[in-house]
Amino acid sequence: MEKIVVMKFGGTSVGNVEKIKKVASRVIEKKHLGYNVVVVVSAPGDTTDDLIEKAFLISKNPDTRELDRLLSTGEQISISLLSMAIKEMGEKAISLTGAQVGIRTIGSHTKAKIKDISSEKIVKELNLGNIVIVAGFQGVDEKDDVTTLGRGGSDLTATALASVLKASECEIYTDVDGIYTTDPRLVKSAKKINKISYDEILEMASLGSQVMQARSIEVAKKNNIVIHVRSTFSKENGTFILEEDKEMENVLVSGVAFDKNQVKVSIFDLIDEPGVAAKIFEALASNDINIDMIVQSTANNGKNNISFTIDKTELNNLLNIIDKLKTKINIGTLKYDENVAKVSIIGVGMRSHTGVASKMFKILADNSINIHLISTSEIRISCVIDKDKLDIAVNAIHQGFNLDK
Amino acid sequence: MEKIVVMKFGGTSVGNVEKIKKVASRVIEKKHLGYNVVVVVSAPGDTTDDLIEKAFLISKNPDTRELDRLLSTGEQISISLLSMAIKEMGEKAISLTGAQVGIRTIGSHTKAKIKDISSEKIVKELNLGNIVIVAGFQGVDEKDDVTTLGRGGSDLTATALASVLKASECEIYTDVDGIYTTDPRLVKSAKKINKISYDEILEMASLGSQVMQARSIEVAKKNNIVIHVRSTFSKENGTFILEEDKEMENVLVSGVAFDKNQVKVSIFDLIDEPGVAAKIFEALASNDINIDMIVQSTANNGKNNISFTIDKTELNNLLNIIDKLKTKINIGTLKYDENVAKVSIIGVGMRSHTGVASKMFKILADNSINIHLISTSEIRISCVIDKDKLDIAVNAIHQGFNLDK
Repeated sequence: MEKIVVMKFGGTSVGNVEKIKKVASRVIEKKHLGYNVVVVVSAPGDTTDDLIEKAFLISKNPDTRELDRLLSTGEQISISLLSMAIKEMGEKAISLTGAQVGIRTIGSHTKAKIKDISSEKIVKELNLGNIVIVAGFQGVDEKDDVTTLGRGGSDLTATALASVLKASECEIYTDVDGIYTTDPRLVKSAKKINKISYDEILEMASLGSQVMQARSIEVAKKNNIVIHVRSTFSKENGTFILEEDKEMENVLVSGVAFDKNQVKVSIFDLIDEPGVAAKIFEALASNDINIDMIVQSTANNGKNNISFTIDKTELNNLLNIIDKLKTKINIGTLKYDENVAKVSIIGVGMRSHTGVASKMFKILADNSINIHLISTSEIRISCVIDKDKLDIAVNAIHQGFNLDK
Repeated sequence: MEKIVVMKFGGTSVGNVEKIKKVASRVIEKKHLGYNVVVVVSAPGDTTDDLIEKAFLISKNPDTRELDRLLSTGEQISISLLSMAIKEMGEKAISLTGAQVGIRTIGSHTKAKIKDISSEKIVKELNLGNIVIVAGFQGVDEKDDVTTLGRGGSDLTATALASVLKASECEIYTDVDGIYTTDPRLVKSAKKINKISYDEILEMASLGSQVMQARSIEVAKKNNIVIHVRSTFSKENGTFILEEDKEMENVLVSGVAFDKNQVKVSIFDLIDEPGVAAKIFEALASNDINIDMIVQSTANNGKNNISFTIDKTELNNLLNIIDKLKTKINIGTLKYDENVAKVSIIGVGMRSHTGVASKMFKILADNSINIHLISTSEIRISCVIDKDKLDIAVNAIHQGFNLDK
């Protein structure tokens, strides 16, 4: 069989009839290059948001089985219109829902996980000469009910299909022309990255950068599928995400990521008894609150202070949980600060080069920016700073590590 | 098992969130009366028309398999939103697509026929205490591809389900409060009919009246399912469609139907040879052109004149076919007249009463209305008249047969 390529188009790429026709041309070009083409499509434009709005007008807590059925209609519209457009241009095409492909899922509605994918139906249709158009974001559970895969679900469909089909490449078409060294809206000299490793992108995703969701990258990494993030509206290469190589290691820092939606939470005067901190973190974890950048220090009075960050959307939830805990254990005083932001540098080169962290701290100090909290991984350094200094910090770091060159 | 009722709601009844909530209340009321409730829903408001428009912007001749997938999304939206609304109000509900119910179809896409319906899944869900919400208008073919049932398809889903489930009643909810003796927009004194026979409704449907499609009525008649056509927005009884009884036979005429979209076609000077007329009608039939009210007469010169009516939408098609035929056989001169309309009276009472036809002709004559063509069945008399006289004709006939009393 010829080489298989998976092309994924997001909602903005199929937002109207003209755009759908452009996508159809693009897909046909690829087919004419000799590839077997599998296309994954998201729901058109704002369709999903409109449907969610309707559901929440009906119920504050809509039944998730019904919500999944509702949300799965957007992709069905995309795949049928795209298939029509391709056929109108004279190529053979067939659309398939997640259920028809055989994308079986487990787990709860609205955030199902892919259990397995049968390649049989797709391979059969490819062998018949068809361009195969698959509905992204959806599968079917053991009761044959439609399920959806949560945020970034169509990317996951694409990388998972590429893995099962042993595709030579998984192209993610979007409305930007690749992944940048940082957000170009904040730093004018931001540069498109030509290639970047899975691990670096995973760190960026975990920092909330507007790149692909971690789950999709993990699937591609595990199966060594090269992802190509590129623009629907340009023929230029975008950013290749792949296994790291020697060349990448020579780059100290690949990108600067930041997150404005962080809250710094501090608990003062925590009794220094074994298990008290554990009880707090257990309670937060069991309520699905992601905490990050935990720092514990011992105060003069022998009691502990603990600081950490959470996403802003979790704040109310956290305050409720702590209030309940207070009735059971003495946990001291809680304070939180919403005027903070997290800035991070990412790069596999850090593993083999020293002095990257101290350079970052010096750049911040040179710009009179105070660091509240620090956390690091093998290939990432993150600092929590005052939110009003974020703009200066990102620009200074971007320039300091020569990312604009 | 308790009595089963099938309630079908059309697109205008589920056109927005407020209306969906009203339908939910209505359905729950029925459940509280002790029924097992199965609901069939159409696509909301203009959804289907919008989708068709998009498809035709992409292709003048959209692939029908893809068109069926596209069109089937509207009902999926309706069933999930309605199910959410019912659950929000505290009742148990579950939505099912045609495929999930097991509505298997044969025949071509966009006009599939129901082959069989499995009652198993619905009965199981009813036994669990669920209100079962079924997507109208759709089924699934032997390839497990979604199919649609054509115009009036949701009514067909409802009557077919009522038949399979041996429902005590099939309620068709719509935006009018029943079936009228004639169109109230034309005749102000038109009255709602309380009950009418299957055969009468079948005649009305075949005349293009805005009632249910013939297929749905035929299914209900075969299985002796009482259909109740009523308003979504009123508690009043509407019109019951059922097996004829003695009482109905006492009514001479049940309704006056009319059709403004007719064209009278006449072929003059047709050679009086065996098989010439047959060739013409064969050619029309093989092109799916429905002809009606055929009248043949012999002219003075020994040649034949043939007149018949067709639907206006078929005119261009017919003219092309006749043009082609002309190259093969001598078929004389064709003329057509678009300024005609068909007016019909329907009533099972005609079978046992004489003089109905002559009374209709007299009413038309008294109003100086010329009759071009006449055709009759056991329970119907139709006349083709000048279109500009239709208004007078319908009002005069309606009054003449005391339908306003």
